[in-house]
Amino acid sequence: MGSFKGHALPGSFFLLAGVWWTVKHSLYFSSRRTKSLRTSSRAAQRRLEVVEGSAVLLCSVVGMLLEQFSAQGPALQLFDSSQQRWTSLMNWQHSTMYLFFSLWAAVSLVVHSSEAAPLALDRLMLAVAFFNEGFLFLYHLHGRAPLDVHLHHLLLFCVFGLALLCLLEVFQRGNLVLELLRCALTLLQGSWFWQIGFVLYSPHGQVWDQSDHNNVMFVTMCFSWHLAVAMVIVSGIYAAVTCVVRSRLRRIPPMEMGLLKPREREPESEDEVL
Amino acid sequence: MGSFKGHALPGSFFLLAGVWWTVKHSLYFSSRRTKSLRTSSRAAQRRLEVVEGSAVLLCSVVGMLLEQFSAQGPALQLFDSSQQRWTSLMNWQHSTMYLFFSLWAAVSLVVHSSEAAPLALDRLMLAVAFFNEGFLFLYHLHGRAPLDVHLHHLLLFCVFGLALLCLLEVFQRGNLVLELLRCALTLLQGSWFWQIGFVLYSPHGQVWDQSDHNNVMFVTMCFSWHLAVAMVIVSGIYAAVTCVVRSRLRRIPPMEMGLLKPREREPESEDEVL
Amino acid sequence: MGSFKGHALPGSFFLLAGVWWTVKHSLYFSSRRTKSLRTSSRAAQRRLEVVEGSAVLLCSVVGMLLEQFSAQGPALQLFDSSQQRWTSLMNWQHSTMYLFFSLWAAVSLVVHSSEAAPLALDRLMLAVAFFNEGFLFLYHLHGRAPLDVHLHHLLLFCVFGLALLCLLEVFQRGNLVLELLRCALTLLQGSWFWQIGFVLYSPHGQVWDQSDHNNVMFVTMCFSWHLAVAMVIVSGIYAAVTCVVRSRLRRIPPMEMGLLKPREREPESEDEVL
Amino acid sequence: MGSFKGHALPGSFFLLAGVWWTVKHSLYFSSRRTKSLRTSSRAAQRRLEVVEGSAVLLCSVVGMLLEQFSAQGPALQLFDSSQQRWTSLMNWQHSTMYLFFSLWAAVSLVVHSSEAAPLALDRLMLAVAFFNEGFLFLYHLHGRAPLDVHLHHLLLFCVFGLALLCLLEVFQRGNLVLELLRCALTLLQGSWFWQIGFVLYSPHGQVWDQSDHNNVMFVTMCFSWHLAVAMVIVSGIYAAVTCVVRSRLRRIPPMEMGLLKPREREPESEDEVL
Repeated sequence: MGSFKGHALPGSFFLLAGVWWTVKHSLYFSSRRTKSLRTSSRAAQRRLEVVEGSAVLLCSVVGMLLEQFSAQGPALQLFDSSQQRWTSLMNWQHSTMYLFFSLWAAVSLVVHSSEAAPLALDRLMLAVAFFNEGFLFLYHLHGRAPLDVHLHHLLLFCVFGLALLCLLEVFQRGNLVLELLRCALTLLQGSWFWQIGFVLYSPHGQVWDQSDHNNVMFVTMCFSWHLAVAMVIVSGIYAAVTCVVRSRLRRIPPMEMGLLKPREREPESEDEVL
Repeated sequence: MGSFKGHALPGSFFLLAGVWWTVKHSLYFSSRRTKSLRTSSRAAQRRLEVVEGSAVLLCSVVGMLLEQFSAQGPALQLFDSSQQRWTSLMNWQHSTMYLFFSLWAAVSLVVHSSEAAPLALDRLMLAVAFFNEGFLFLYHLHGRAPLDVHLHHLLLFCVFGLALLCLLEVFQRGNLVLELLRCALTLLQGSWFWQIGFVLYSPHGQVWDQSDHNNVMFVTMCFSWHLAVAMVIVSGIYAAVTCVVRSRLRRIPPMEMGLLKPREREPESEDEVL
Repeated sequence: MGSFKGHALPGSFFLLAGVWWTVKHSLYFSSRRTKSLRTSSRAAQRRLEVVEGSAVLLCSVVGMLLEQFSAQGPALQLFDSSQQRWTSLMNWQHSTMYLFFSLWAAVSLVVHSSEAAPLALDRLMLAVAFFNEGFLFLYHLHGRAPLDVHLHHLLLFCVFGLALLCLLEVFQRGNLVLELLRCALTLLQGSWFWQIGFVLYSPHGQVWDQSDHNNVMFVTMCFSWHLAVAMVIVSGIYAAVTCVVRSRLRRIPPMEMGLLKPREREPESEDEVL
Repeated sequence: MGSFKGHALPGSFFLLAGVWWTVKHSLYFSSRRTKSLRTSSRAAQRRLEVVEGSAVLLCSVVGMLLEQFSAQGPALQLFDSSQQRWTSLMNWQHSTMYLFFSLWAAVSLVVHSSEAAPLALDRLMLAVAFFNEGFLFLYHLHGRAPLDVHLHHLLLFCVFGLALLCLLEVFQRGNLVLELLRCALTLLQGSWFWQIGFVLYSPHGQVWDQSDHNNVMFVTMCFSWHLAVAMVIVSGIYAAVTCVVRSRLRRIPPMEMGLLKPREREPESEDEVL
């Protein structure tokens, strides 16, 4: 009971998140290399994180409400005792996914606006949110057509990859390489939701043969292309942000730049000091 | 040959362990940030760990005896040579699970009451105990109904997750993020045992259709909800303990708090010094 | 629709890469232990990496063009709308593999010729390129004979192993043990491509029984032998390079050598300083 | 075409290796904590490792020769062209396993008797040897009875666990917790080989029903018991060695002992200094 819109909406959300994260982490990384920016940037980073957390919390609460009170939504009714069956399990599952992202946002808000808990908790909650998304999708696909199952399996590669990445970031916070890969995979997830929408519920009306093995093979390759494009976009945004930051500021002497060794640097960004 | 009680008992045990660990680790973390508490707390932590070890040892030995000498227990008889078959394999498997938890408790006692071995051994033994539990469950499910198998498979996610977490703690001892996640997963395991008991051996008498795919899907989502509730409970306990500790003591200047970097801090807790 | 040449070509490429990497990393490691070589070698290493990146970029672009415009190639046509089917999906998949290796080469060029991004990005892109290769092979084998499938499954062990290794190198750059293992696995991949060519499309004309289980068992063992030979070759090259470097330079006092502890050494190689 | 002896022989070998490693690592760990022992012990450790390497090299070469030239051995003949089939593939596979252990021994010899390569290489080669053993067993079990397959699958848990542990030791050399776990798993592997021999080729003549699920369940539990016993034996040996070393030497002041933090200690053992 999916629809084109049901895939385009989360797709757009993840595309937005991917672009935003790329800008954010490129900005943090650039300003971390510039001494004059350090002290002023910590407070700014903190504020940015709080804004991000609030926005995600708002979006996911709205998402939950939409899933519950839309036309076919269960309106908070879980079990239809007259017919002895569960009501709109799909909508309930989507609500649960939104719930975990809202938990992440809440923890992120607490962690960045107070000093009550270690910063790494926000990455852990993000890992849990992605893991939960993949976990629910895993048992979501019973009895569907081969192409449908394959399209969603490919999504799982991306979602579990993101969960693993965020878990790594608990221990390697501020590692630009991991952050950029997370951005690329988030973009990939967004664009793949759109792709699923176009293949399964094409708005142009043409229908794919869901049991043709050639379609399965094409779709696999298409997933690789999405990944390649996502990586190119992330590189582009990173290059643009770095250029803008550099042109605004005096250049840094070359020997300060280079391979980041997180443990030997003095803490410079909010992530590290706070 | 399960029963409601047979699931409620370990469930209660894990719920208790989850709550206790949350209190313990929150307390350690709070006192670690307060200089005046440091020296006095080391001996206290040591004593606490010894008490915990003794309690677990006692409980698991009692558990083993109950499994062996209860009404349908094998009473230490392994092979019934008159009928040429194994006696009560289920009870023997449960005894084996208790055995590994008692081994963990014994190692924990030795490690915290003497200086004979590295502290990290207790986390390793806990990882082995959880792994062994999951390993025995894995080959426990032959020929059961789909819903029954699925309920226990979900449990395995939790148990193997705990084993992995404890293994990570061997290398990252005293990392609050990992400790809180362990507490949440232990609570989840406890409440999920209760859930299994209610679904399969409902004390209210109603019976679930064990081959209905909708039930499988609902149960999957239910697992996510248990996880969410477990995380909320852990957060609540953590917040309460932190508030109590802070209100009892003079406040710490803010720049001392913040992101924990285990390797650069001086050792403060028993875990780190001993 | 494979061919002997279609396996020998990538095989030769990986064999060449394996030998070249062994020479390079042995050279870096030897010169890192010699003080007099340090300053001069950094610029040389940088230049070497740029040359390597350019060569790989060239090769993979040529590979893409060959796949597209060879006799049975799709010539950039993806969908044959007259027959309503995809054109030469195999060639498109191979092009995609080349594409990811060219992305790696491009990132490696940027990273080593400028200071715009952290060095570790090149290992990450290599991990992504290997992962993508394995990922496409994984869904490549639908409906083939058991021996054919098995031969390619063994290849996957090697390819995903390489992806994992490169990911580890993101965090442990300059660890000789990982680098030599990567060289051995690259050699293994190269020689295994040749082996697949000989078994499936033997140029001598004899045909293997593709459903005989004994052949499957022999081929498994053969894979182990390839690995053993690859490790012996890597050891040989390493020993030769080390001897040449040592005989050219004054000997280093023994206490400076020994177990490398990457974190405590001062940065000496381009990998670490740049 | 297995036999009781064919399982008892490697079993005894691994039992011996497990006991020996426990003694060795307990000894290293104890002497590492005693200042007066440090300088003298380095040379001794080095000599010990060379002796170990030579012994393993000898044993595995003898093992290879036995597999090749025993009664049913292939005598280095790989393909029987008269009958168009492979000769004694089982023996060839066992020879290959011995080959990888001899490669490990050779690398260990070179690494500990010269300064040509990083020490961690010996752990990597051990990981590769165990991985290769598991890899060959994985494709060894085609068409056997369920109990037979299950017995060997349980062995794989142990073998791949050992491979993973050795890989971890490449990065965490000298971590006593990992070393003791490796000792326990090696003992487990040894005793499990004996168990397989007793179940499948019982010297007492009684035959197990290989398709009875109860036997499968018992065997699973039995594996856990072997693990528990192996851990108890390792603990016993560790305690004995520690007591002997302590009683021979003056006691160390308590504050020097306790949690080992490998990175902050000065290098004391051969493993760390060389």
